[in-house]
Amino acid sequence: MARLARPLAPGSVIGILGGGQLGRMLALAAARLGLKCHILAPERDSPAFQVAAQRTIADYEDRAALAVFARSVGVVTYEFENVPAETAAFLEPLVPLAPGARALATAQDRLTEKDFIAGLGIPVAPYAAVDGEASLVTAVARTGLPAILKTRRLGYDGKGQVRIDSGSNMVEALRELGEAPAIAEGFVRFDREISVIAARGWSGETAVYDVPENRHANHILHTSTVPAAISDRLATEARTIGRRIIEALDYVGVIGIEMFAAGDRLVVNEIAPRVHNSGHWTMDACAVCQFEQHIRAICGWPLGSTERHSDVVMTNLLGDDAARWAELAAEPGAALHLYGKAEARPGRKMGHVNRLTPRQS
Amino acid sequence: MARLARPLAPGSVIGILGGGQLGRMLALAAARLGLKCHILAPERDSPAFQVAAQRTIADYEDRAALAVFARSVGVVTYEFENVPAETAAFLEPLVPLAPGARALATAQDRLTEKDFIAGLGIPVAPYAAVDGEASLVTAVARTGLPAILKTRRLGYDGKGQVRIDSGSNMVEALRELGEAPAIAEGFVRFDREISVIAARGWSGETAVYDVPENRHANHILHTSTVPAAISDRLATEARTIGRRIIEALDYVGVIGIEMFAAGDRLVVNEIAPRVHNSGHWTMDACAVCQFEQHIRAICGWPLGSTERHSDVVMTNLLGDDAARWAELAAEPGAALHLYGKAEARPGRKMGHVNRLTPRQS
Repeated sequence: MARLARPLAPGSVIGILGGGQLGRMLALAAARLGLKCHILAPERDSPAFQVAAQRTIADYEDRAALAVFARSVGVVTYEFENVPAETAAFLEPLVPLAPGARALATAQDRLTEKDFIAGLGIPVAPYAAVDGEASLVTAVARTGLPAILKTRRLGYDGKGQVRIDSGSNMVEALRELGEAPAIAEGFVRFDREISVIAARGWSGETAVYDVPENRHANHILHTSTVPAAISDRLATEARTIGRRIIEALDYVGVIGIEMFAAGDRLVVNEIAPRVHNSGHWTMDACAVCQFEQHIRAICGWPLGSTERHSDVVMTNLLGDDAARWAELAAEPGAALHLYGKAEARPGRKMGHVNRLTPRQS
Repeated sequence: MARLARPLAPGSVIGILGGGQLGRMLALAAARLGLKCHILAPERDSPAFQVAAQRTIADYEDRAALAVFARSVGVVTYEFENVPAETAAFLEPLVPLAPGARALATAQDRLTEKDFIAGLGIPVAPYAAVDGEASLVTAVARTGLPAILKTRRLGYDGKGQVRIDSGSNMVEALRELGEAPAIAEGFVRFDREISVIAARGWSGETAVYDVPENRHANHILHTSTVPAAISDRLATEARTIGRRIIEALDYVGVIGIEMFAAGDRLVVNEIAPRVHNSGHWTMDACAVCQFEQHIRAICGWPLGSTERHSDVVMTNLLGDDAARWAELAAEPGAALHLYGKAEARPGRKMGHVNRLTPRQS
């Protein structure tokens, strides 16, 4: 496994797997620091290609392309957690990979992820593995009803999930998920959803941002508000949990960790081994945003200050929301970010807006 | 002369003449708004190419390349005032050009520029045209000594200038400037150098940033400090002068106007028809920076708020200064910007750092 031998100096090239908005915002942050990006993505019209010094259009399984890509860069990172494990395993001996294959594998499988977090003594929702009708019955006995049946792999934004109630047909539910290996999760009664955006460098240095409070609509993040309306104690605990997870994973880069706040208790929901939508507010409210922080971390640079100069509400622009760009651009105190996507399909993340107000506390 | 018929929607392409750091930062700002950039520059390793969706390597006089370039974009702008006037004249009937050829012509010639500003009743240093030994003698009689003899065209960062004292050899001085048409300028005793960064849209809407105080070293900008240590009255007057100039030029885009503050009096030194080094602090201290503001202005978008959330000192990184990147990156409250230039020649602008502190007033 290749580790980074020395910091990548300005002018070096960073490899990014994935050409969506996260890869694009990573490339923009890298450019600010005088670093170049080489983006590898299968889609010819990848938004990140518009701002990258080098582009490779190839599938993530294309080993010939991956080998050339690895030789052209000083470090490889990725913008999404569904990079095939085989791709990570293929790249890791060739070039420093951050976050590493182990962190990726942990976050790719909901069961492994839950076992890992619970193994640290950090509260998670009640859960159990499901690989057929019999185990589903046992699982929901453990989690209680209602429960959510989720595929272990490849789910996001509410995809690959089905709710189980007392009247549900178990066989039907399993079929709905294509009989894929799954996990049943009990419901957590919570007051608020929050997240922790944390970073860790190759040296073990860590940095954690202020805690945003997140609201979802149709299983997709709608807003992140900073600071979250939680006690200082709970915010500190959330950040501590973030540090424990990122250290236990021997993680390098930025991570997003979603949590539920229930009374004075925190329950970890899931982790994303990448920059995170609930960290987009850092782009306009902090000296160093999550994208630059990720670039610093993976390139062996000192981490930047996570200090926040403003209060902020980040709102995602989905589908046709982005057609309101002129109105949003005219709004004082609003910083508009659009992702350069040609087609505004319903629910597609087209951009976001950060609304800033002077810091109150 | 083509004017912009309607705002350029996200996904549109902006043409930029010039591929240096200003073009690069314009391209990064455009990308944030979902706009694409097509950069035309003669140098194969232009820093702006690293972040542009489209690149053309061509001379500014290459009409075939310019015609293709003009057809591929919705508006053309430039990052430096030495774009040949013929290039601007060639482009302007083909595609909206912002700032327009007239503003460019005014700022390209120190004599035209002075006549224009003085014609508005705005104080400038005493000046006179010089086209040979006889007129130089007459000119310095008018400006007093010492004076600075400057070429009318193509000077920047102290290049194309020579100081005239009572003991100077006039013939020698003219020869040093290659006998080029010149202008003699009297010295202005000043307390501080300041500048105004202003923007104007196609509709006539204007926006003006807070006034930075600038220090130069070896004729190159060293620091910009915001706010400047001048009275509110003087700051307001500076901004008013900025508005008057930008309106009188029927200007579209961001302009930089350098001024001297002498007691309670302001004297305009020179104007740059482009984003300006003394506006780089806006990148980290304002919701909308000068680069995004320029993109908004030339694309027919509403101008953004110029509100400043922090006090800030911008320091240019010249030549080997940028070798200290690791140390600068580790400094809390410092936002580092590097321009992706391969070779750190002495005096070459390699990057800048914005040091933020909480706003005091």
